[in-house]
Amino acid sequence: MTATADTERPPGALMAAEIAEQPRALQRLLDDGLPALREVAAQIARRRPRFALLAARGTSDHAALYAKYLIEIGLGLPAGLASPSTLTTYGGRPDYGDVLWITVSQSGGSPDLVDSTAVARSRGALTVAVTNAADSPLAATADLHLDVLAGPELAVAATKSYTSELLALFLLIDAWGGGDGSPARALPECAQQVLEDGVARDLAPRYRFVERLLVTARGYAYASAREAALKMMETSYLSAHAFSGADLMHGPLAMIDEDRPVIAIVGPGEGGAALAPVLDHLHQRRADVLVVGDAPAAPWAAAAVPLPATDERIGPVLHILPLQQLAHAMAVARGYDPDAPRGLRKVTETR
Amino acid sequence: MTATADTERPPGALMAAEIAEQPRALQRLLDDGLPALREVAAQIARRRPRFALLAARGTSDHAALYAKYLIEIGLGLPAGLASPSTLTTYGGRPDYGDVLWITVSQSGGSPDLVDSTAVARSRGALTVAVTNAADSPLAATADLHLDVLAGPELAVAATKSYTSELLALFLLIDAWGGGDGSPARALPECAQQVLEDGVARDLAPRYRFVERLLVTARGYAYASAREAALKMMETSYLSAHAFSGADLMHGPLAMIDEDRPVIAIVGPGEGGAALAPVLDHLHQRRADVLVVGDAPAAPWAAAAVPLPATDERIGPVLHILPLQQLAHAMAVARGYDPDAPRGLRKVTETR
Repeated sequence: MTATADTERPPGALMAAEIAEQPRALQRLLDDGLPALREVAAQIARRRPRFALLAARGTSDHAALYAKYLIEIGLGLPAGLASPSTLTTYGGRPDYGDVLWITVSQSGGSPDLVDSTAVARSRGALTVAVTNAADSPLAATADLHLDVLAGPELAVAATKSYTSELLALFLLIDAWGGGDGSPARALPECAQQVLEDGVARDLAPRYRFVERLLVTARGYAYASAREAALKMMETSYLSAHAFSGADLMHGPLAMIDEDRPVIAIVGPGEGGAALAPVLDHLHQRRADVLVVGDAPAAPWAAAAVPLPATDERIGPVLHILPLQQLAHAMAVARGYDPDAPRGLRKVTETR
Repeated sequence: MTATADTERPPGALMAAEIAEQPRALQRLLDDGLPALREVAAQIARRRPRFALLAARGTSDHAALYAKYLIEIGLGLPAGLASPSTLTTYGGRPDYGDVLWITVSQSGGSPDLVDSTAVARSRGALTVAVTNAADSPLAATADLHLDVLAGPELAVAATKSYTSELLALFLLIDAWGGGDGSPARALPECAQQVLEDGVARDLAPRYRFVERLLVTARGYAYASAREAALKMMETSYLSAHAFSGADLMHGPLAMIDEDRPVIAIVGPGEGGAALAPVLDHLHQRRADVLVVGDAPAAPWAAAAVPLPATDERIGPVLHILPLQQLAHAMAVARGYDPDAPRGLRKVTETR
């Protein structure tokens, strides 16, 4: 088995297979991952960290952003996204006593993440690696390791490793706060249903010639907006911009007109409610909006992909599924092979 | 005097005047701002915070990102960008004892920033407002206030308030660490020289028809990339994407080809050096690159805007100047009025 696209496969076959595999990967984590995960959560709880920092790149950075919300809102712990370069490029040596440092990486192989995790550990942080690669340098470097159990990911565009990272982080943070993970139990079945609906895939022709697109959301769903935009950029090479609804109003709203399609991810709870004034502005600007999630929030929308109602905190695991399907179908419709995006390799070695 | 664009003014006159005013605004802060700034720094130092969180939106968020690097690298304090919605939309109530919370806002009027600052203060944080509006609700809400003294800003696209925020944050963090601010003394003169050169303005015709553009940088200069992209989005409505050099390699690199112009901001120190492998990749992909800063780093570049050598930490105050000029000239060349971007107002009321 090789990690490069096989020329005999139809374009995007690897990515399509890995998108379809997600309900099984999520079920595997729920079936087999909980004991290890609870042990890591117990060790974190024993250390009673006072601050959390999360380090990641690319897709995993969006899982880290999601975890930041879970930690701040659910655990009442200040949390931030780390800039690894302050420790690597600039040689900063902060005092990380009382800090929990979580590194999220599919491959566990990016040198800047391994190096910054080593520095964080040497400066007193409790370090946790969340990866899809138990044998990776990152897993060996951190104090604690959590395997997201997504199985080997071959397509360059990450899909199943992302949703497994989201679920692992939800379960970890939930367990750390004393939860039993129950809000996540129905996820594999919901994911299966969303993927079988395949509504978003059928929308691909609408976006066949789009060169610029904007994705917006608020709260937990903002991570989904960032990840959806990245999937489209790396497989269809279009300019897909993600903005939180709040930041959109501070400047980028000027970019919106009838010819700039918008995807709005409307979560089921407070985050979705906070997006309402943003949706009003988009409507006033006659924007072409695809609503993913709570479709009744914008009855005037050009298209909608309704999602099953869930606990808002696990919504992001579902939001991204139709948008992965859409990104895949858009790339194939354009004659690209999303399994082999130009200029990219599976393990990115940034320093 | 009114804050809306006067129809008798030529398009972009307000923005052009405020761009030109920056050397004087920086000099004013150095001449008149230091006593107040040192007093705030002394109060922060007395509290000995263990963690810093920065809250901001839009342009000011880029100043906050810059400050995050200064705090982590220069002071060895873990720092993160806050997500105000965790406190406002979701009602999170984290324990902010030992936390320094810095809110950066030109107008000091955005309700979500005022509210999240009030929550942070009530949860034990030492709160500092950095604004261009001493009478603002934000200045009244925070424990401490720092006026960046840029004078009234009338154009919707922020320019002078941004560079004054950068300088105020540099001087504050430098003073907190015991510095005397000397690296910044030559800034007004350097800024004057860069603006008079006007090299970037002359490049506007090259970008007259560009719809999609990418800006990259690493380290301190990454904030400059984010701000340059926002200026172009809000005045010329094009898709300007900013990526740190490290994140660019994790996906978005696939977007780059000969027809997607790239602006690379190459800082004078470690950040610029860390961008070298990214520049190599861009060259291999035959990208059309404009280098701002250390021009010799990419002799093959399509165009260059050299900048005076400075301490890397204050480089961002200079990087943005030619890119403000370019954004302004591009918008005017397209027949837009950068003083009145469609859909935007000067004070954005996000909640």
